[in-house]
Amino acid sequence: MANANKWMIDPDDAVMLLIDHQSGLFQLVKDIELPTLRSHVTALAKVARLAKIPTFTTASVPDGPNGPLIPEIHQSNPDAIYIPRTGQINAWDNPAWVKAIEETQRKTLLIAGTLTSVCMSFPTLSALVAGYKVFTIVDASGNWSKMATDLTVARVAQAGAMPIDTYAVLAELMGTWNRPDAMDFADVMVDHIVPPYRALMESYDKAQSVQKVGRETKLDRLETAEAKK
Amino acid sequence: MANANKWMIDPDDAVMLLIDHQSGLFQLVKDIELPTLRSHVTALAKVARLAKIPTFTTASVPDGPNGPLIPEIHQSNPDAIYIPRTGQINAWDNPAWVKAIEETQRKTLLIAGTLTSVCMSFPTLSALVAGYKVFTIVDASGNWSKMATDLTVARVAQAGAMPIDTYAVLAELMGTWNRPDAMDFADVMVDHIVPPYRALMESYDKAQSVQKVGRETKLDRLETAEAKK
Amino acid sequence: MANANKWMIDPDDAVMLLIDHQSGLFQLVKDIELPTLRSHVTALAKVARLAKIPTFTTASVPDGPNGPLIPEIHQSNPDAIYIPRTGQINAWDNPAWVKAIEETQRKTLLIAGTLTSVCMSFPTLSALVAGYKVFTIVDASGNWSKMATDLTVARVAQAGAMPIDTYAVLAELMGTWNRPDAMDFADVMVDHIVPPYRALMESYDKAQSVQKVGRETKLDRLETAEAKK
Amino acid sequence: MANANKWMIDPDDAVMLLIDHQSGLFQLVKDIELPTLRSHVTALAKVARLAKIPTFTTASVPDGPNGPLIPEIHQSNPDAIYIPRTGQINAWDNPAWVKAIEETQRKTLLIAGTLTSVCMSFPTLSALVAGYKVFTIVDASGNWSKMATDLTVARVAQAGAMPIDTYAVLAELMGTWNRPDAMDFADVMVDHIVPPYRALMESYDKAQSVQKVGRETKLDRLETAEAKK
Amino acid sequence: MANANKWMIDPDDAVMLLIDHQSGLFQLVKDIELPTLRSHVTALAKVARLAKIPTFTTASVPDGPNGPLIPEIHQSNPDAIYIPRTGQINAWDNPAWVKAIEETQRKTLLIAGTLTSVCMSFPTLSALVAGYKVFTIVDASGNWSKMATDLTVARVAQAGAMPIDTYAVLAELMGTWNRPDAMDFADVMVDHIVPPYRALMESYDKAQSVQKVGRETKLDRLETAEAKK
Amino acid sequence: MANANKWMIDPDDAVMLLIDHQSGLFQLVKDIELPTLRSHVTALAKVARLAKIPTFTTASVPDGPNGPLIPEIHQSNPDAIYIPRTGQINAWDNPAWVKAIEETQRKTLLIAGTLTSVCMSFPTLSALVAGYKVFTIVDASGNWSKMATDLTVARVAQAGAMPIDTYAVLAELMGTWNRPDAMDFADVMVDHIVPPYRALMESYDKAQSVQKVGRETKLDRLETAEAKK
Amino acid sequence: MANANKWMIDPDDAVMLLIDHQSGLFQLVKDIELPTLRSHVTALAKVARLAKIPTFTTASVPDGPNGPLIPEIHQSNPDAIYIPRTGQINAWDNPAWVKAIEETQRKTLLIAGTLTSVCMSFPTLSALVAGYKVFTIVDASGNWSKMATDLTVARVAQAGAMPIDTYAVLAELMGTWNRPDAMDFADVMVDHIVPPYRALMESYDKAQSVQKVGRETKLDRLETAEAKK
Amino acid sequence: MANANKWMIDPDDAVMLLIDHQSGLFQLVKDIELPTLRSHVTALAKVARLAKIPTFTTASVPDGPNGPLIPEIHQSNPDAIYIPRTGQINAWDNPAWVKAIEETQRKTLLIAGTLTSVCMSFPTLSALVAGYKVFTIVDASGNWSKMATDLTVARVAQAGAMPIDTYAVLAELMGTWNRPDAMDFADVMVDHIVPPYRALMESYDKAQSVQKVGRETKLDRLETAEAKK
Repeated sequence: MANANKWMIDPDDAVMLLIDHQSGLFQLVKDIELPTLRSHVTALAKVARLAKIPTFTTASVPDGPNGPLIPEIHQSNPDAIYIPRTGQINAWDNPAWVKAIEETQRKTLLIAGTLTSVCMSFPTLSALVAGYKVFTIVDASGNWSKMATDLTVARVAQAGAMPIDTYAVLAELMGTWNRPDAMDFADVMVDHIVPPYRALMESYDKAQSVQKVGRETKLDRLETAEAKK
Repeated sequence: MANANKWMIDPDDAVMLLIDHQSGLFQLVKDIELPTLRSHVTALAKVARLAKIPTFTTASVPDGPNGPLIPEIHQSNPDAIYIPRTGQINAWDNPAWVKAIEETQRKTLLIAGTLTSVCMSFPTLSALVAGYKVFTIVDASGNWSKMATDLTVARVAQAGAMPIDTYAVLAELMGTWNRPDAMDFADVMVDHIVPPYRALMESYDKAQSVQKVGRETKLDRLETAEAKK
Repeated sequence: MANANKWMIDPDDAVMLLIDHQSGLFQLVKDIELPTLRSHVTALAKVARLAKIPTFTTASVPDGPNGPLIPEIHQSNPDAIYIPRTGQINAWDNPAWVKAIEETQRKTLLIAGTLTSVCMSFPTLSALVAGYKVFTIVDASGNWSKMATDLTVARVAQAGAMPIDTYAVLAELMGTWNRPDAMDFADVMVDHIVPPYRALMESYDKAQSVQKVGRETKLDRLETAEAKK
Repeated sequence: MANANKWMIDPDDAVMLLIDHQSGLFQLVKDIELPTLRSHVTALAKVARLAKIPTFTTASVPDGPNGPLIPEIHQSNPDAIYIPRTGQINAWDNPAWVKAIEETQRKTLLIAGTLTSVCMSFPTLSALVAGYKVFTIVDASGNWSKMATDLTVARVAQAGAMPIDTYAVLAELMGTWNRPDAMDFADVMVDHIVPPYRALMESYDKAQSVQKVGRETKLDRLETAEAKK
Repeated sequence: MANANKWMIDPDDAVMLLIDHQSGLFQLVKDIELPTLRSHVTALAKVARLAKIPTFTTASVPDGPNGPLIPEIHQSNPDAIYIPRTGQINAWDNPAWVKAIEETQRKTLLIAGTLTSVCMSFPTLSALVAGYKVFTIVDASGNWSKMATDLTVARVAQAGAMPIDTYAVLAELMGTWNRPDAMDFADVMVDHIVPPYRALMESYDKAQSVQKVGRETKLDRLETAEAKK
Repeated sequence: MANANKWMIDPDDAVMLLIDHQSGLFQLVKDIELPTLRSHVTALAKVARLAKIPTFTTASVPDGPNGPLIPEIHQSNPDAIYIPRTGQINAWDNPAWVKAIEETQRKTLLIAGTLTSVCMSFPTLSALVAGYKVFTIVDASGNWSKMATDLTVARVAQAGAMPIDTYAVLAELMGTWNRPDAMDFADVMVDHIVPPYRALMESYDKAQSVQKVGRETKLDRLETAEAKK
Repeated sequence: MANANKWMIDPDDAVMLLIDHQSGLFQLVKDIELPTLRSHVTALAKVARLAKIPTFTTASVPDGPNGPLIPEIHQSNPDAIYIPRTGQINAWDNPAWVKAIEETQRKTLLIAGTLTSVCMSFPTLSALVAGYKVFTIVDASGNWSKMATDLTVARVAQAGAMPIDTYAVLAELMGTWNRPDAMDFADVMVDHIVPPYRALMESYDKAQSVQKVGRETKLDRLETAEAKK
Repeated sequence: MANANKWMIDPDDAVMLLIDHQSGLFQLVKDIELPTLRSHVTALAKVARLAKIPTFTTASVPDGPNGPLIPEIHQSNPDAIYIPRTGQINAWDNPAWVKAIEETQRKTLLIAGTLTSVCMSFPTLSALVAGYKVFTIVDASGNWSKMATDLTVARVAQAGAMPIDTYAVLAELMGTWNRPDAMDFADVMVDHIVPPYRALMESYDKAQSVQKVGRETKLDRLETAEAKK
């Protein structure tokens, strides 16, 4: 099996954890553009569903200024399960959270959380001690300073977590273009991770259309010059 | 009338010109993020329609690597009119283009074009000589280098054009929140110009909901602490 | 009189206008750090009071996600007057606003507003047409993008406004250190504009204290080495 | 117990060491804004007190241009103990310093120091050799160049120290929102670490107030438009 | 005639002046990447020849560390004439230089020079006083600091020069794609100004080739998925 | 033997793998300038040939918008072998690819791939598990975001790969200037890695020429001043 | 005469004004590196002396934390005259200052001052109103924020001052390399403005020495390879 | 002994290696300002002499465009020994180099080299394999790109080298301010590493002088205001 590799994600052993992606906390994020962060989180929600990966969400004190969970997570992944908590900063300190994960009987965790320094980092460190293999998706997390993110990546890597980006998560879960739902993965990639890709597709279609149905622009001299090449 | 001001846009005298926003040329843009540029152009297309401003588009050699016009312009503004040209770099060198503008009998031009140095700049300079009042929408244009954009802004300002950003165009055309279609303008603003605004709305709704229907989180000590304040 | 200079501010002819500095809008600001912006606005509120300059504030739709005026403005300057408006984007479109300014019989306006492109820019352009001399305080304004700020500065300067920074406003209103309230101005400067200045004062006081009361560190060799110089 | 985790901080085993945060040295700092650095150091002083963590400070040749310790450390944490030294660059070379730490019988050190390359780094490396578990709080340290900070983080991590940011320290010591002094921790966070959070609270309160006491702005059309939604 | 516009370049009235583009001076350049600068200068040399514009070069003390003129200028434009000077810093102080320009009987000067602050700026200011229309090509000049470039642009613009970038020069001289030598201009653009354009051409050709000769990749499922769209 | 060092490259044990350097994918690259990336890839192709290192290329779905392999790889290295694949994202999942590498009987892999997060990273992780020593050439790869590159470097280094830059690869393969083909390596370095080096050579040649054939500039006073030194 | 040009500096009509370059104020500077600023100010002091330009200095409250004038100004230019002031923020408000300038009977002022927004800007605006021609040397001034510098440049340019950089000042005052003291000007340039120039001179001398006295490195193969070229 | 610490430098076991700091190669450096790099290298040369550390230099093909060793190294440290080499890129491949180091009977190497990727990195990797403890002084090295430096630091750290900055080297070798030559170390620090420190000393001396000899500025009101405090 392609991904039976200790440094890579086995989709059949993975759980997606999306922690504290809340509208208020998002206003504090300074290491990534806010719309980009929202897109990456949405990508993870969608791709988890495509790859049939159990997905859990939670929020920290959402009734106060931290604000509600951004709605697109559960809209994009109706199978995701929200697990409320009672004030714990580290989601892993909530027994219901740990129990939900244990019941999946999977041992690979894909973790994103806002703020990275705290909401992504603490559950990561706890899960590592509990024996899980952890991938921390840093560009779907969002932190209060760039320096804090750099420090957090160094910290969790030192503890054994594997840092990863959103595109790599999608690509590892997808594995090959030669599968029936390849276009569904591709749509997530284009819509939420690399939107400039859309211009490539438009240019590609236009080039083929010129070949098929001819030029739109009347430009005699140019065509002559090209013919001479 | 509020905007009867020589430094501001009079919506009833304005024409929107969206020049050479093509998928291939977009790959050369380096002074603004590509998805941001696409969003700003879309915002202009939509807001021109809301403000009932005649809108013209054109493209430079779209059959070749420059690529096709991005589709969302005409999708967002079905009233916009596409005027093909026959190789001229400066759209103003195309008599059909000038004629279309003259027939509107309006004298204020809102111009965005990719690349800024050329496709926005040349028609701007021609229009100024022809006696038009020109607003150049630089952050809906896109250029091949940041330095080139700075030079272009200095150049067109020296010639008398007024540089402006996409948000200001929207706000000048809208004028007041106290109009029936205010929410339509607001949707354009949130969807295409300042997407972080959406998180503000979500937080706002949640805060009101807590007031109306109560807290979701069970957090006794916190509530006690707050009560003591 | 020192400031009777058409390029400078005459404190006796000036009005301070602080427009739409609201908690929600502040979340959209990307051309200046948010705490810095708050500090600059506070500095203006305080310095206007020290210089006995009439000060007016207003807010755009503060009941919605734009949020309330930041409280430190009126806390710092109890003489400031809040003038509500009824949906107009350009504060100058509100007759009550224009009337308040006219009644001061002053012709020099110091304008800061969030967002710069709109809330600072539009009243500036209107006031210029109405014959006022306008100083736009750009680093006490806050805008949705750096590019938009650069464009706005070019635009208002082209229309005749004079761009200025918060420190220069304070220094022009203060004029000389040889006045009874010099330390009050200095406190504003240190607390809200150049906080690193505090370390200068601490180092200065320590150096004098060493001269007066002797060294704290027991470091025999160093003193010997110095004696040899 | 939640934090019994070798990668995390156990508040009951921790000592806070704030080294050489002096007004003169602060003028050399180039990897972080000076007011931000002062705020982070103050946050650590306060949070150490809230979490009842023994705190020691020291200074390097404070009688000379290095300048005095910034006063807010001991003002914010009256329990902190200042331990002078006699010229040693590495605070760990001062026997009184090591003895004070040993007498706490705690084995986890939280270290911040200016300059990071020297005053934070050297005691860290000494403490690791002496068998302590060390967290280096890099964004409460301050260094003479960004490159030097990056090199120092790599160096101390290689030696076994765990890099961390100020927010994470606060959150690990706090642990949960469900404790009587939660608001005290929150005040430190808002006042000294993420000041933009204050705007979130203001917006939140306003949104609830609108719900409770009604709108302030008279804006008939907007309300109608909203009603139609 | 399209370009008979006082803000634009008339190719039939233009002279190209390339001043002090020397290998030693290039090592001092910090406002633009060195290979980029070399490419832009080469583009100007080539495009001047294509547009039949008289071109003059000179060098400042090339026998010393300033170094020789970069060879590609005269290699790319054999018609360019080198005019040595005898120590004058401002090329305009050399009577032979002024005479050569006067003899062209053209009144529009396109000026690039290294360093921008001096070698581009001084002849520009002299030529403006002498009644010429001057375009300063800032991104083909190269300066010792970015701040110095910004100041120089402000200075020469204030004196009446029109700042411009290399791409705009090429496009104004070219005028239309509908001319026999359009591909020669295009080659200069792709080879020396926007090299990423080459990837657009490669992708374009591949897309047409797939349409003409079929797919290279054997990927059954993808094709099926596409067919379903 | 000089390079018999586990941390360095042994040219006789090395294989060069250039993965998915395609014109469409290149448009997504944001961590390095596109022309720079193309140059680095070309340098690797050339230097592999000079050092007689087996070289394999592949492409991901080149018939679609990903676009064709950039042509200069095989033009620069006619010995390179292209191995098509059938949709696998990870080139290592293609048995033909693994077999080609195994047949070289070499155990050191030099890997560059676009996008770094996926096309460079996945084969690297697979090769490490398969027992190869891997050098990942990050500045000849190209990724969709700078943050993603940083995360990928951390990830592959954690798994045991050695990150390296293009210049170091060339220098390790070259080993000494004292070899017959030293100038061939030097040409690759100057043409594709450090183009500013060309100006050094030009200045060097000019300085020697002045010594040999005398000054070109007539500058009497300067020579006098120098004589006095 | 070469510089009889209204946009340029006439050395025989110029006065150099160096205002408030004080050790304490320098700690507030954030728009330019501090050692660079010191070097530029020193360059101006030296070059004023070489060009026999009257030079005046002053300081703002130097007994307090603003600190003393940096010593190298008067060390480098013993002819400079220090004019104390009695608290005025704008040096032009000090009658002794204005009188000293008037007595030179020169009408061109070269002004640098720390902080740019205040100490450079205010005397500039006063001098313009008094009828002087003013060059503001922005990169020898130093300001509390980059944004404030940009605003100040726009402000003083709008009032008629000509922004300039330190290198351009030196070059305009020098005029030609063909003068007896050319090397003295060159020394200032290399020592204080473009220190990388020194490496050019070293490389130049080495290249000539190799030509004169032969190679130092024994490298037979390389020489052979070169011979074959 | 204070520094008997495996993570720190023992001055009595250290050798300083300064490799290929040549005027031509310096022109390629892009990860650090050139004057800063020269200063750091000079600092190392001086501090090695103060600490009585054997110092060796070498150069790569200095007769060609790489240029000569910068002269200040041997000027600052007359005890340093230059060891020529015959074309080897890795200085460790030169037996004379290795022999010189072995004869010192010291096992800790402090290595700086230009370019970092090659001239610092290769000898570092060789020395590690040979059993030395290596500190790589990255900010006294200089590299052709920032990305290449980051990759090199990751590479050598992975191999076991300890990255360090110039300031930390000085401070570790100095150890304490309480030594007879403390001021000599301090001079190196101020002159070559943190030049802004000089302003601290000037301000310090002025503050003491005001205390000793009284104020220079006549500013009655200010003094009164201060007295009231």
